[in-house]
Amino acid sequence: MPVLVVGSIALDTVKTPIAEHADLLGGSASYAAVGASFFTPVNLVGVVGDDFPKAHIDYFGSRQIDLAGLQVVPGKTFRWSGEYMWDLNTRETRSVELNVFEHFNPTLPDHYKATPYLLLANIGPNLQNHVLDQMTRPRFIIADTMDLWINIALDELLRLLKRVDMLILNDGEARQLTKETSLIRAGARIRAMGPKYVVIKKGEHGSLLFGDGQFFSCGAYPLEDIHDPTGAGDTFAGGLAGYLAAHDASIPLAAQPTSASGPVDIPWNTLCKAVVQGSVLASYNVEAFSLERLRSLTEEDIRTRYEVFRTMSHFEQLA
Amino acid sequence: MPVLVVGSIALDTVKTPIAEHADLLGGSASYAAVGASFFTPVNLVGVVGDDFPKAHIDYFGSRQIDLAGLQVVPGKTFRWSGEYMWDLNTRETRSVELNVFEHFNPTLPDHYKATPYLLLANIGPNLQNHVLDQMTRPRFIIADTMDLWINIALDELLRLLKRVDMLILNDGEARQLTKETSLIRAGARIRAMGPKYVVIKKGEHGSLLFGDGQFFSCGAYPLEDIHDPTGAGDTFAGGLAGYLAAHDASIPLAAQPTSASGPVDIPWNTLCKAVVQGSVLASYNVEAFSLERLRSLTEEDIRTRYEVFRTMSHFEQLA
Repeated sequence: MPVLVVGSIALDTVKTPIAEHADLLGGSASYAAVGASFFTPVNLVGVVGDDFPKAHIDYFGSRQIDLAGLQVVPGKTFRWSGEYMWDLNTRETRSVELNVFEHFNPTLPDHYKATPYLLLANIGPNLQNHVLDQMTRPRFIIADTMDLWINIALDELLRLLKRVDMLILNDGEARQLTKETSLIRAGARIRAMGPKYVVIKKGEHGSLLFGDGQFFSCGAYPLEDIHDPTGAGDTFAGGLAGYLAAHDASIPLAAQPTSASGPVDIPWNTLCKAVVQGSVLASYNVEAFSLERLRSLTEEDIRTRYEVFRTMSHFEQLA
Repeated sequence: MPVLVVGSIALDTVKTPIAEHADLLGGSASYAAVGASFFTPVNLVGVVGDDFPKAHIDYFGSRQIDLAGLQVVPGKTFRWSGEYMWDLNTRETRSVELNVFEHFNPTLPDHYKATPYLLLANIGPNLQNHVLDQMTRPRFIIADTMDLWINIALDELLRLLKRVDMLILNDGEARQLTKETSLIRAGARIRAMGPKYVVIKKGEHGSLLFGDGQFFSCGAYPLEDIHDPTGAGDTFAGGLAGYLAAHDASIPLAAQPTSASGPVDIPWNTLCKAVVQGSVLASYNVEAFSLERLRSLTEEDIRTRYEVFRTMSHFEQLA
């Protein structure tokens, strides 16, 4: 089944302690859509200016990404510039030019409106709500967010949380949103705000999945060299959403919605596998700048690293 | 098989944002010996003053802990006082009184000298080396350390590293010792300093075990309430060492040393299970001040939480 991905599409300038590159393909929707496309067809919603390189659009098109929802409008593409500190864990935004993104009004083509899986990648929660307003209730709705929206658009974000099935955010954001220092308490508190599932990303420490009385702890792939952390979280969300959509057929009949449109009850085991697949894609993505590593990534690569995740997390029962 | 545990025995005064307690049983050897005693007999080496409550000695004696190596000398017991900040992750040492510990010269009773498993719990590396000097080469040697020794006794610590099979330290200490920001690189670098195995503890993020081309990532038990983190690392080390010693019989014949005394080749799977058991004990220990929670802990409790660790880390193979 396809997944609709909405978010930002950007041209990034990224500086790390090792290198600096300008006008790279970036933005939450770019990473998330390409990530999801490893598993399932994607309906992309976003906006770019008329300066956006055709090569990038061709790249999206070369994946199983529908571009009917991609608006190309007069003006300049959204631009972001950031710098990573020596440990690659801290990032400073150097500049943001909203450009055509400032007046972005995501309007869904008719054939997008019943897309069964929805990933609201990181953009303002008002736009996330606006996209959701246009849709038949998807079978599963995932939202990503960031500290900025917790700071400047909390009410709109809280309204969104009541409408989604899963929220993805990082550890600092989870603490910021709940004022809880314990991530375990934070996960439970966010679930009480609406989403049935919460994923807390912990960077080099992996991620945590919270459900109803259920908990999954996923380690991080042991990377020695990280070249560019940009887009890791977006790629994670895209891979997770794409894997879920691709495995919709594994949902048992008893867990199907009673009405034609309504949330499905995805098996816990499938959710855990999706978190691992998101982690696999993100771990590859940070090995190179922009989406470079994803361009050459194969299904075999993904399977291989998934097995490493299994091996490194495995221990036997007690005798 | 028994494990010899050497380290500090202290009376602690601990302040958390919730409570403050004085003159609690503490010290690395206390936590480690009691932790190990859940799995195997312990030979304890340490020193206390004549003010040390007989009730604590009786408690050690009530476990399977041999006290022939416990020196009771005239003077006051080592005292430590610390305060935890609001998030319980940062700790400030308020005072340290070495007292009888200042002239501690660990001397092994003869029947300790061939103890097959050795845990050099956190004390100065000069004392750790001195204990090792008195022993027939144990089948497996584990050392714990802390930032203080990396700062003031680095040469002695580096000498120790060449003599031990496993080093346990926390993430900050691993970075401090190697000047590497990546824990994956740090683990590899420490292995190159001597120990065949390295365990990096990450507090609420779990722990990492590094071997020769092998890697295990262990999550942390999802605790909502932590009452006192003191001794978590020592209990972890004790549980890990105790579990290994108790399961020595599982080492295959081919992995036995060729000479009468020499290191054994513990199966990777046993090492991973030992890391989980250490995590289980540590997770219980932080639920109450001092060793209070360990006093009531049962074998059944340990098995139950081990299974939770398995469940929360488990995900299936790809179809």
